[in-house]
Amino acid sequence: MTQYKIPVIGGDGIGPEIVREGKKVIDAAGDVFGFDVEWIDYPHGADHYLETGELISEDTLKELSKYKAIYLGALGDPRMTPGILEKGILLNMRFYFDEYINLRPIKLLDGVESPIRGKTAQDIDFVVVRENTEDFYIGIGGRAKKGEKKDLLEVKRQLYSAKFGLDIETDSEEIAYQIGMISKEGTRRVIEYSYDLAKNRRNHLSSVDKANVLSDIYGFWRENFTEIGKKYPTVQTDFNYVDAVTMWFVKNPEFFDVVVTPNMFGDIITDLGAMIQGGLGLAPGGNINPSGTSMFEPIHGSAPKYKGMDKVNPLATIWAGALLLDTLGESNAANAIVNAIEKNVSAGIVKTSDMGGTNKCSEVGTDVARIVKEIGKK
Amino acid sequence: MTQYKIPVIGGDGIGPEIVREGKKVIDAAGDVFGFDVEWIDYPHGADHYLETGELISEDTLKELSKYKAIYLGALGDPRMTPGILEKGILLNMRFYFDEYINLRPIKLLDGVESPIRGKTAQDIDFVVVRENTEDFYIGIGGRAKKGEKKDLLEVKRQLYSAKFGLDIETDSEEIAYQIGMISKEGTRRVIEYSYDLAKNRRNHLSSVDKANVLSDIYGFWRENFTEIGKKYPTVQTDFNYVDAVTMWFVKNPEFFDVVVTPNMFGDIITDLGAMIQGGLGLAPGGNINPSGTSMFEPIHGSAPKYKGMDKVNPLATIWAGALLLDTLGESNAANAIVNAIEKNVSAGIVKTSDMGGTNKCSEVGTDVARIVKEIGKK
Ligand SMILES: CC(C)[C@H](C(=O)O)[C@@H](O)C(=O)O
Ligand SMILES: CC(C)[C@H](C(=O)O)[C@@H](O)C(=O)O
Repeated sequence: MTQYKIPVIGGDGIGPEIVREGKKVIDAAGDVFGFDVEWIDYPHGADHYLETGELISEDTLKELSKYKAIYLGALGDPRMTPGILEKGILLNMRFYFDEYINLRPIKLLDGVESPIRGKTAQDIDFVVVRENTEDFYIGIGGRAKKGEKKDLLEVKRQLYSAKFGLDIETDSEEIAYQIGMISKEGTRRVIEYSYDLAKNRRNHLSSVDKANVLSDIYGFWRENFTEIGKKYPTVQTDFNYVDAVTMWFVKNPEFFDVVVTPNMFGDIITDLGAMIQGGLGLAPGGNINPSGTSMFEPIHGSAPKYKGMDKVNPLATIWAGALLLDTLGESNAANAIVNAIEKNVSAGIVKTSDMGGTNKCSEVGTDVARIVKEIGKK
Repeated sequence: MTQYKIPVIGGDGIGPEIVREGKKVIDAAGDVFGFDVEWIDYPHGADHYLETGELISEDTLKELSKYKAIYLGALGDPRMTPGILEKGILLNMRFYFDEYINLRPIKLLDGVESPIRGKTAQDIDFVVVRENTEDFYIGIGGRAKKGEKKDLLEVKRQLYSAKFGLDIETDSEEIAYQIGMISKEGTRRVIEYSYDLAKNRRNHLSSVDKANVLSDIYGFWRENFTEIGKKYPTVQTDFNYVDAVTMWFVKNPEFFDVVVTPNMFGDIITDLGAMIQGGLGLAPGGNINPSGTSMFEPIHGSAPKYKGMDKVNPLATIWAGALLLDTLGESNAANAIVNAIEKNVSAGIVKTSDMGGTNKCSEVGTDVARIVKEIGKK
């Protein structure tokens, strides 16, 4: 029997309870598909930080980097300043493990009603590949005030002040700036991954950017996209502006097959994608380094006000568990889980309140686990 | 009789034909509300550029800056590299005239079906105030390669390469970067405008940013937002992340009253806003400098493939005309136009194909002009 060790970070708010259901389903899959999981719990999150001062240490990161896949609940706590946990733990891990693919399937399941009028399961079935280590997520920025010499920034301030004639003569902080950066190699690897994915799907790859305005950074992105495309003559491609894409997601989601996009726009459009597929309760995400440590999580946050109430929808987390098993090479088990989610949803009996039901989080987990076993036994 | 001179830039594609309808309606309003408009045509756009090499010259900009309001069709042409016309004309004017308010009403009219299930005119009625002169729209960025010393950039590259261990040793262009910047004064003026607007509406102002990740630039934004808010104790406020906002626009648009947001996120969420209010055919925008030259346009683009077919929906442009008249102080005429649009739409008889009708662009213009006259005569 294959043995896996999988680190788990339940995290904050409802994180631990949804991950509990995810583990339940993976364990059930193990029973019927012949593998066994040893779960290794990590305490990281707001409580741990407030007690110990550790967000996530270099030592822990090193230790975690020995594993192929991490299972993550959710991070975020009302006691914390925005950004501390997100950057200190979540983004830190994405960057440390160089998880350059953020894979987000946008698939409306049979039996789920999309909030978009007239769209059914046939219309919404695409994948967003979000670059996950570059762009405006690199955390470089600052503030400037009168008298400071900050090299390039000084030039920019002059340009800026010439452009707008603003008075930046006082001694306070007058300007804040943020820098985004993409590299040729960082762009290549995510675009190549996306072309490969498109080849295995419907041969259509859409780039989402804003090259008409942020031309320096996204002009470079487009050049790379086009260059790499030469190796994939059978894949049909198009360039799309991010603003327009928010409309197309609503108006004609059936247009999309694989979408590749820089980090920040990926963040934005995948939340919208989650909504059109029926809401955050159903949207999983994978942070993938194909040759290193990957990490799987629901797209939604820690929903602190529901903490401990056994109330929220665990399906996004369970689906993330399927992506995790896929990465471990357990594709039969992964497919069985996705299948079981679909069966649970289309039966429409055991469901949480966001889907119009009255069941508990744990009851949904138990139901999906049961269906996985049924499928596995066939 | 009051006399106005209004410069008109029809622009590219369907621009001239939609602006023609907008002028028709404003002229009709003038007849009944007692003002007269002299339209001054400007040829700027792709054809003019390809013939003369001029995007829009400093001289023209100076001349235009004598007027209070410009009426703009649309810019964009398939013969041009993305960004040339947009930056050279549209953004150039926004920056030159320092039109720091981009005002975008998101209002579902009675009689229009939102693509969002279950949402009616009562649910969708808010205004997005998009900062229009700063942020990632300042056009500062570049590329770097091995051996170049670029001050601050050099530091960033080191940081970057340390973070990801990427090999940036070759002699090609390895990195592209883009810089966003906001100023205290630039932030103050748009946020103050938004608080004032909220006070005249439902006393609710929402900030949209991404301060948890782009903390340098949007942390500064939030500080300014909070500081200015002290002068507006009766306005209820909240901070929202842009990714989540794309979901709320779909899930509970009724939450929003006035939304204020930096330039780039404003670009993205207002396109989505246009969609939930029934599509781009209905979404107007104003680029406003309250003490200078403002500019009014539909949010949609130049739709080259419909050029000259008298087919597209002129309502966004007509509505933009109402915003224009408001700026000139003709608020009765402005209200009559919005009212006439609502009457045209709720009657549901004279309508273009995007709204399920078979009428021409010019027929819709004529119908709205007729209704404006009726209203004015009462
Ligand atoms: C929590 C936040 C830092 C994160 C992001 O912006 O990437 C989240 O929104 C996501 O999409 O995973
Ligand atoms: C055409 C483009 C430069 C412009 C923008 O990005 O501002 C447009 O999308 C808009 O929203 O007015």
